[in-house]
Amino acid sequence: MMAMKKFLNDPENLVQELLDGFALANANTIRLAGSNLVVRATPKPANKVALVTLGGSGHEPALSGFVGEGMLDISVPGEIFAAPGPPRVIEALRMANREAGVLFIVLNHAGDVMSAEVAMEMAAKEGLNVEMVLTHEDISAGTREDPSERRGLAGCLAVIKAAGAAAEQGKSLAECTAIAVRMERNLGTLAVAVQGATHPATGDVIATVDEGVMVVGMGQHGEAGGGTQPLKTADETAAIMADALIDDLGLERGEKVLAIINGVGSTTLMEQYVVLRAVKKHLAAKGIDAVRCIAGEFLTVQEMAGFQMILGRLDDELLALWDAPCHCPALSRK
Amino acid sequence: MMAMKKFLNDPENLVQELLDGFALANANTIRLAGSNLVVRATPKPANKVALVTLGGSGHEPALSGFVGEGMLDISVPGEIFAAPGPPRVIEALRMANREAGVLFIVLNHAGDVMSAEVAMEMAAKEGLNVEMVLTHEDISAGTREDPSERRGLAGCLAVIKAAGAAAEQGKSLAECTAIAVRMERNLGTLAVAVQGATHPATGDVIATVDEGVMVVGMGQHGEAGGGTQPLKTADETAAIMADALIDDLGLERGEKVLAIINGVGSTTLMEQYVVLRAVKKHLAAKGIDAVRCIAGEFLTVQEMAGFQMILGRLDDELLALWDAPCHCPALSRK
Repeated sequence: MMAMKKFLNDPENLVQELLDGFALANANTIRLAGSNLVVRATPKPANKVALVTLGGSGHEPALSGFVGEGMLDISVPGEIFAAPGPPRVIEALRMANREAGVLFIVLNHAGDVMSAEVAMEMAAKEGLNVEMVLTHEDISAGTREDPSERRGLAGCLAVIKAAGAAAEQGKSLAECTAIAVRMERNLGTLAVAVQGATHPATGDVIATVDEGVMVVGMGQHGEAGGGTQPLKTADETAAIMADALIDDLGLERGEKVLAIINGVGSTTLMEQYVVLRAVKKHLAAKGIDAVRCIAGEFLTVQEMAGFQMILGRLDDELLALWDAPCHCPALSRK
Repeated sequence: MMAMKKFLNDPENLVQELLDGFALANANTIRLAGSNLVVRATPKPANKVALVTLGGSGHEPALSGFVGEGMLDISVPGEIFAAPGPPRVIEALRMANREAGVLFIVLNHAGDVMSAEVAMEMAAKEGLNVEMVLTHEDISAGTREDPSERRGLAGCLAVIKAAGAAAEQGKSLAECTAIAVRMERNLGTLAVAVQGATHPATGDVIATVDEGVMVVGMGQHGEAGGGTQPLKTADETAAIMADALIDDLGLERGEKVLAIINGVGSTTLMEQYVVLRAVKKHLAAKGIDAVRCIAGEFLTVQEMAGFQMILGRLDDELLALWDAPCHCPALSRK
């Protein structure tokens, strides 16, 4: 694959420059604090649980784009595709710490988990009140019973939305944690890629996809998924992916789900809409009601083309939390 | 250029499918009415001016993504890159018609203008109370004195935002029209492309860009701009484009502007942030204050890579209108 032509300066300064631009573009919602932590422009009252996350840059708007009312309190952005080190993570946990407690949401990627675990040890020594929840909802690896090999993909949006709404409503740390875990355990994500991407700092190709094929199950750093097959229509692709998710989640006739199509970069919003409509129809034919449906670029992988399909089983409480107001750079609900 | 691999079904059904998915994804904000007109889910009170626009599909989220509170009332989406015909446009004007009047915002592209003018003739015969405002802020062709050759690009976002806020505040049709015209006359847009795109229905290449170069001034259907030059850094590109806009607008030390970076498809939000920050700095060095800055994909061109830079001179009223609340699929301000 030819390297993508990108508008960049010295790669050394890339993360600082993108964070400065991000803060400028969202001055009414977020700001930078401490050592490039992304925090809310208007802090949440201290008597409510705070939500913190961490993750590599290069996936914009994720994860810092989820900071805002009804969502996260602090995001710790790392270098491109690399976790931030423990010192900045513990800085965030200290900054967020409060009597109500801190819910720390971590996507299952080796570097993120390593930084998070070191920071959690430090937090415990310092007596900080932090609960950590891991998201690992990518069904292309591991099993639902042992999700340790499952990556955390864009399904984190639903976990952050549910727990963030619960925190905003004044629920306790134990309640917010239980909600995050329940949403996470009822989520499945499956990715498909039709075009790879390049690393914006090194120029390295981080994934390639051959002509005429699509790869079902490719992770957000180009990790293989094994599902290489001829490119199919939007409806056929939606059906293949939805069936895998239905099977993994054990969804049955009469259940209600949230359906999210997350564009990963070059795949147009137009295509995402076409696929979303296909998922809704495909589920309906099986008696499963996608009661809430959204599409957009929430967690991207540079100029990769493809999307992640996310299905989440909703009970009445999770549905109400999804519908609760939020306002962050990447999502706004009145 | 190789054809992009896209998730599509029968091209015959593409627009219907994307509109169905769009309505599904934004059920809390918009819905389809009549012959695929995009209208607000909660209509604006009839004693306030209504805003209507039209335009080809394939540029998602534009233009239908601008329908919502503080923005448009009705959008008439056409086929891919093609204006809707006069019958659906007059249907929208009739639907929007009210004593307070209708402001009809049209981007300067031949097909759009032709449909709009026929519909305006019909509206006049029927006694509808409609004022039409043309946006033509692309500085790569024509002149500020005679903008008839200037295309309407993503700067329409600022015009719709200003006039939409004025309408929401209960201003008269004459006042809303004057605000739309003032915002439009104080806007400039310049586009740059580094990778072309393919037509999603026909598969035709709609623009090509050679290796190692960028094209400054390329329109949103691949129209040539004449500015082919070696690919430069983000900061250099931002400076070249900002200087052209400053010159065209006659911006002077001490003035306040709105700066928008509109990603057209494959160019990442990361890069848009890097460029936005560069524009802010470049303007500041010339004593021009970019008091409001945003970046994102508002009007796209399939998988084209590049962006549109928009600068708009702000007076106190236009600044307040930019800051007024809005809630539509493509933009939300509290």
